[in-house]
Amino acid sequence: MAQENAKWNELAELGEFGLIKRVTAQVKIKNESTLTGVGDDCAVLNYPGKKVVVTTDLLTEGVHFNLIYVPLKHLGYKAVSVNISDICAMNAIPRQITVSLAISSKFTLAAIDELYEGIHLACAHYGVDLVGGDTTTSLTGLTISVTAIGEADAEELVYRSGAKPTDLLCVTGDLGGAYLGLQLLERENELFRLNPTVQPQLSGYDYILSRQLKPEARTDMRDIFGTLGVKPTSMIDISDGLSSEILHICESSGVGCRLYEERLSFDPQVQKMAEEIGINPLVAALNGGEDYELLFTIPLTEHEKVCNHPDITVIGHMTTQEQGALLVTAGGLQELPIQAQGWNPLKRD
Amino acid sequence: MAQENAKWNELAELGEFGLIKRVTAQVKIKNESTLTGVGDDCAVLNYPGKKVVVTTDLLTEGVHFNLIYVPLKHLGYKAVSVNISDICAMNAIPRQITVSLAISSKFTLAAIDELYEGIHLACAHYGVDLVGGDTTTSLTGLTISVTAIGEADAEELVYRSGAKPTDLLCVTGDLGGAYLGLQLLERENELFRLNPTVQPQLSGYDYILSRQLKPEARTDMRDIFGTLGVKPTSMIDISDGLSSEILHICESSGVGCRLYEERLSFDPQVQKMAEEIGINPLVAALNGGEDYELLFTIPLTEHEKVCNHPDITVIGHMTTQEQGALLVTAGGLQELPIQAQGWNPLKRD
Repeated sequence: MAQENAKWNELAELGEFGLIKRVTAQVKIKNESTLTGVGDDCAVLNYPGKKVVVTTDLLTEGVHFNLIYVPLKHLGYKAVSVNISDICAMNAIPRQITVSLAISSKFTLAAIDELYEGIHLACAHYGVDLVGGDTTTSLTGLTISVTAIGEADAEELVYRSGAKPTDLLCVTGDLGGAYLGLQLLERENELFRLNPTVQPQLSGYDYILSRQLKPEARTDMRDIFGTLGVKPTSMIDISDGLSSEILHICESSGVGCRLYEERLSFDPQVQKMAEEIGINPLVAALNGGEDYELLFTIPLTEHEKVCNHPDITVIGHMTTQEQGALLVTAGGLQELPIQAQGWNPLKRD
Repeated sequence: MAQENAKWNELAELGEFGLIKRVTAQVKIKNESTLTGVGDDCAVLNYPGKKVVVTTDLLTEGVHFNLIYVPLKHLGYKAVSVNISDICAMNAIPRQITVSLAISSKFTLAAIDELYEGIHLACAHYGVDLVGGDTTTSLTGLTISVTAIGEADAEELVYRSGAKPTDLLCVTGDLGGAYLGLQLLERENELFRLNPTVQPQLSGYDYILSRQLKPEARTDMRDIFGTLGVKPTSMIDISDGLSSEILHICESSGVGCRLYEERLSFDPQVQKMAEEIGINPLVAALNGGEDYELLFTIPLTEHEKVCNHPDITVIGHMTTQEQGALLVTAGGLQELPIQAQGWNPLKRD
């Protein structure tokens, strides 16, 4: 307890403004649109001729992350990625973030430094500037609130609402990995809790672990769309699971869809882990979430442009709203209504 | 417990997206700069020819507010006000906010509605649009993260860094009320805790209570500066106490100052409450914080323009940095170094 107090005093002596100076000392402004960053009442941004997009996400300890098996550096990186992913879903370019933290007395200065190491790494990777934030205490646990700001020309922006019947439904990358990575971490954590001499068995699962612990936003897709000469008619990022996101597009666009099970392929680690815990990998893709891939629609006439791209899979097509939002099982045997069973943060187990 | 679960289930059944729809149903976009608000991955904003200012603040239960005596509606209003205040401190016009909430299972749907009632009231009062956010759970307590966005012409913006030696130091309104309102609430809460039959004695203190519970950002000052034909050389809002804010201006501008005790006058309720708890009201002004008035500097030559305005008091002047940041006590008897003893959220009592 005395030691804990000593560690906290280190933070208290630094104070809020000292801490802000410390964690933002290495910030070098990279974007022309950032006129001034940290250090005044507001950041000042400049977007001549552009539209500005804004998104925000809040992560809370014990709900979104478990610090027993999530390294703070990864957490910082992920908190940025999940917001950048929303900017990508608008087909915009991320430029700035603000980061607010509420920390409880269990956090040391070293822990805060580690968290910010991940935040700065993400800023470097995505080319965004950390321009503001707030640092305060909480009675328990860690809360991270990130706001991301980006830009695009008006005609580049892609909304959820533009899908048309007959449009192709496409997805980037592969799905289910983040959810199965989490299942692996929780399984090994539980085994460790029951018997602390047991070492976690994580080898051979690096892909699904990285999908869970260090998700990457698809900032590459904007350029890929440009190169392919394709502009999605609608787009959303996959944070809550494929089912939930498909239904968002259907609802916003006033359309239905057919999603074909056999069009989804899975990484071998996803297949292996799904088998180990006795679920169909399809369920992880549909309901798992946190993959941060992009789900989008394109006109049927654009099929040729995307069908051979290694990062894009056509997984179905849109229909009229009256035809419903349906999953067509392998071999076309069944048509099942797509239901949003993704993560509901307001639901208790 | 069964009842508590039933109430929470009400929220869980609504789900995150249902809750977002419910609390944003009444949102009507008021600003031309808001192209699209809630309902996509990002809000889309448009600021042709303007600079964009962004600020964020995080409030946590038990640290920034005590729900025993802070009504949720007031809390929602205040969470918006404290961010709008930062926009005012840049001499900009507030336009949009995002609101993220983490709520624990003790909160009912009615409680969330009440919180949003205050948020919507503030949006109406300040003319800002609620354009996004995130709603999730926390293991304990309530966390509110607000980001505010505003606009100004480049030449209108006022930074902390523009104060010059010989500039006059000015403040809007009066200080110390918010801190003494908090002391009153805490005193009555403590009496009630010791003896629940004792009714809180709050009558005659409406001013300091409203200063604490429902602070107003000084959105009026931008127009007042315009009417007076004055542009501050530096400005900051008073969230952490006058001492702390003066030192921020001194540090950012590379200047010193003389603050004259006798220039500060106090509301009678501030004087009365300070007397009751045995402190000098000056201490409440210097170190109390949360008054959300504006502290600014103007060239000495502008003295005539501001000296008769009822909302502005000249409380000192700037000096060279070498002359230090000093408080001149009443009658000019002493010159004491100004020290930031304002609220440090990282310090435990």
